[in-house]
Amino acid sequence: MTLRYWRDLSAILHQYAQMTFSNPIIEAGLAGLSQLYADRAVTPVEACEAYLSRISRLDPALGAYVHVEADTARAAAHRSAERWAKGEPLSPLDGAPIAVKANIAVEGAPWHAGIEAYRHRIAEGDATVVARLREAGAVILGLTNMHEGAFGAVTDNPWFGRTHNPWRHDYSAGGSSGGSAAAVAAGLCAAALGSDTLGSVRIPSSLCGVFGHKPTQGLLPTDAVAPMSWTLDHVGVHGRSADDCARLLAGCCGAEPELAAEIAEPASLDSLRGATFAVLDLDGFDIDAAEKEAFVGLAGRAAGLGLELETLTLMPAVFAEMRRLGVFISAAESTAAHAEALAATPELFSEAYKGRMIEGERQSAAALARAYRELAELAADVRERLAPFAALLLPTTPMPAFPFTEAHKLTPGALTTLANGLGLPATAFPTGLSDDDLPLSGQALAWDDETSLGLARALALPVGAPLSFRG
Amino acid sequence: MTLRYWRDLSAILHQYAQMTFSNPIIEAGLAGLSQLYADRAVTPVEACEAYLSRISRLDPALGAYVHVEADTARAAAHRSAERWAKGEPLSPLDGAPIAVKANIAVEGAPWHAGIEAYRHRIAEGDATVVARLREAGAVILGLTNMHEGAFGAVTDNPWFGRTHNPWRHDYSAGGSSGGSAAAVAAGLCAAALGSDTLGSVRIPSSLCGVFGHKPTQGLLPTDAVAPMSWTLDHVGVHGRSADDCARLLAGCCGAEPELAAEIAEPASLDSLRGATFAVLDLDGFDIDAAEKEAFVGLAGRAAGLGLELETLTLMPAVFAEMRRLGVFISAAESTAAHAEALAATPELFSEAYKGRMIEGERQSAAALARAYRELAELAADVRERLAPFAALLLPTTPMPAFPFTEAHKLTPGALTTLANGLGLPATAFPTGLSDDDLPLSGQALAWDDETSLGLARALALPVGAPLSFRG
Repeated sequence: MTLRYWRDLSAILHQYAQMTFSNPIIEAGLAGLSQLYADRAVTPVEACEAYLSRISRLDPALGAYVHVEADTARAAAHRSAERWAKGEPLSPLDGAPIAVKANIAVEGAPWHAGIEAYRHRIAEGDATVVARLREAGAVILGLTNMHEGAFGAVTDNPWFGRTHNPWRHDYSAGGSSGGSAAAVAAGLCAAALGSDTLGSVRIPSSLCGVFGHKPTQGLLPTDAVAPMSWTLDHVGVHGRSADDCARLLAGCCGAEPELAAEIAEPASLDSLRGATFAVLDLDGFDIDAAEKEAFVGLAGRAAGLGLELETLTLMPAVFAEMRRLGVFISAAESTAAHAEALAATPELFSEAYKGRMIEGERQSAAALARAYRELAELAADVRERLAPFAALLLPTTPMPAFPFTEAHKLTPGALTTLANGLGLPATAFPTGLSDDDLPLSGQALAWDDETSLGLARALALPVGAPLSFRG
Repeated sequence: MTLRYWRDLSAILHQYAQMTFSNPIIEAGLAGLSQLYADRAVTPVEACEAYLSRISRLDPALGAYVHVEADTARAAAHRSAERWAKGEPLSPLDGAPIAVKANIAVEGAPWHAGIEAYRHRIAEGDATVVARLREAGAVILGLTNMHEGAFGAVTDNPWFGRTHNPWRHDYSAGGSSGGSAAAVAAGLCAAALGSDTLGSVRIPSSLCGVFGHKPTQGLLPTDAVAPMSWTLDHVGVHGRSADDCARLLAGCCGAEPELAAEIAEPASLDSLRGATFAVLDLDGFDIDAAEKEAFVGLAGRAAGLGLELETLTLMPAVFAEMRRLGVFISAAESTAAHAEALAATPELFSEAYKGRMIEGERQSAAALARAYRELAELAADVRERLAPFAALLLPTTPMPAFPFTEAHKLTPGALTTLANGLGLPATAFPTGLSDDDLPLSGQALAWDDETSLGLARALALPVGAPLSFRG
């Protein structure tokens, strides 16, 4: 495996080393940009303009944004520039150009969650996570497209359009946070907020070749996040590196500086050594050959870095059952959350979306009560299986990006729902490109955010910028 | 109000001062008994025999017990006697004769929760609360009758018989923990465990003239307690004084000595002075005149003791809505909990019980999802209303005990479900007898267990022993 690892790595390094954004402001990402601000090489106003200009130029064909907040972004960037000029930034996020998923309230902006019934709803206030980012000086560029109601993994939204995959037009960016992941991958924001109920941050991160992190349940508040399932919803982050994810996550944690400082630093490789990590046995899982190969490479890199690995058998049925319960609970809670609008304007919800929610009406209250209990019991069992390990490594999605026109036979969320059911943090990270140049992805599921982010940093094979977005 | 208070108090003191059990072992209650053990005036064997003898003699007509554990109780009492003889009791509960509600698992004993389908189910282990009591040296006398499945407030059980009210034969002891409250009132145990989902400890405590405490949610584990609603179920305690309740509660808390010590001591009157207490405005509530009058007397005593009082208006609709949600959630969770037995042997559940559970099947999963959310929102609102106060004083039940043969037009749990929805501790305590000699009851709902127990101790008007059980 070590030999294979070196072969893979050298091939990949050779192939992608130069694949970066030509504009250093864009290339810098989140952490790099604050360094440029500190060095007075770039101002937040320049960065904001660079991103707004790219959005105008590139987004019409991509479809990552549903709303751009150009004026308020410019105003925020000006205030940030004044602070940096005085050497008094509010935080390492001051002046960071951030995109926000359309189900998270941004005061004064549309807050529709990709649902036509709410197209004209304007958020009266910021969600707490957004308010914290503003307090940290972040510049909110706009709101990103998503799968209708967050209930799906394709982001082919019948009301707000498709988000194309930056790596291949007419291919899905994944979902439900498809717009956020695509915007990060295409360099249309430095980093982005998403939400993850059954995998909605990690799936599009996988398909778009970026990092996506679903935090520990309860770490980030979900107030003013239009609910899909309030018992499983998490706010998550998308970035072009594990460090960018950690930095944005720390900003979302707000006024808990100690916690924020800890999360802003993914666990170092040194601190990961000594623990034992589980590698999911993929035997019996229905997984695309390219993803499987990338996962073997990932395990090889982990071994090559001196991490202690053990194969763990968790039956596909465990993942399937967690997913069945998560989907049913989401159906019931989505139906409850949107009951008024569903009753008043059923025609403003797509048939596909209503079809997903229908189990919430069709099944009984007792069935839901049982589902909550079964989920809790299953989670307790799985936690026990995971207890000997510091983390579990597994693929993020069973396949890379797929065309909009093809019904994909594999379930994008087959391997992501587990972390939502467990309430544990999980990070998706790139593991190279397939033979036909689509990003592949690995996932680290750990007991704490620093460990999963640390594994992502240590084990990723970043894939650089998609060809059409480099310039 | 002060004048009235003195008139009431002197009348009541005159009337009931001598109404005690003639046997000092029985009269001692829980705390008194351990003093008798320490003084070597009585041994645990004598106490156990005294209680077992009363059970044989008096319970056939009362119906408080469904199963007596005479042999294991005697064996436990012998071991306890040896410890006391050596001056090495395990705890202040060592040798305490305790009764346990039939939905709480006692190893080797029937564990049927008043449901015919489980008549022959024998508990394979102790519920944690029972195990902790045994570790403290308690003597488990037996299991008490209850409303079928804990889903009701009458304890007229179609499979296991009626529990009569010790104050009046053919009157209900209340429920669902009717057997436990009746056993405490009739001197057939020193104290008892019950369970409280919508009021099941406090309602029968009210009707039987004893103290009943529902602890803070989560304080006591509910494992191996046959679920009615696992999101609202609490294990609670019945005793003949607030101190007895506190002592039994502390024993149930087990190996957390600091917490146990704090709970074993209800807040003193001195420590209660200085805080402000809310007195529920009963305007608009449908409450029996005798209970209303007793509540006025209770408020008068509180003022007379120098407590700062303020009238609080919480609309009857708030209580009704909390109750509607609690009943529906209980229906769904009860249906889920008993699904297998319901499917296999529907004839072993009464029509009345199935009628209560039917909403769990009839209503949708989405309706239940909405109910959980509405309950959480309502609880948050009420907590805000209660925030300025150290506790809320209110009646326990809208009426005293009622005959089995009469459908009571008032809802016994109308005023108790609030505490379950809030997850806050509440203590029911006697407030005298009605003109026709039925116990009346007040309720203290507080932010911590010590305060509600302290108020119960300070404000109760104990009613002594029912006439037919004094000898």
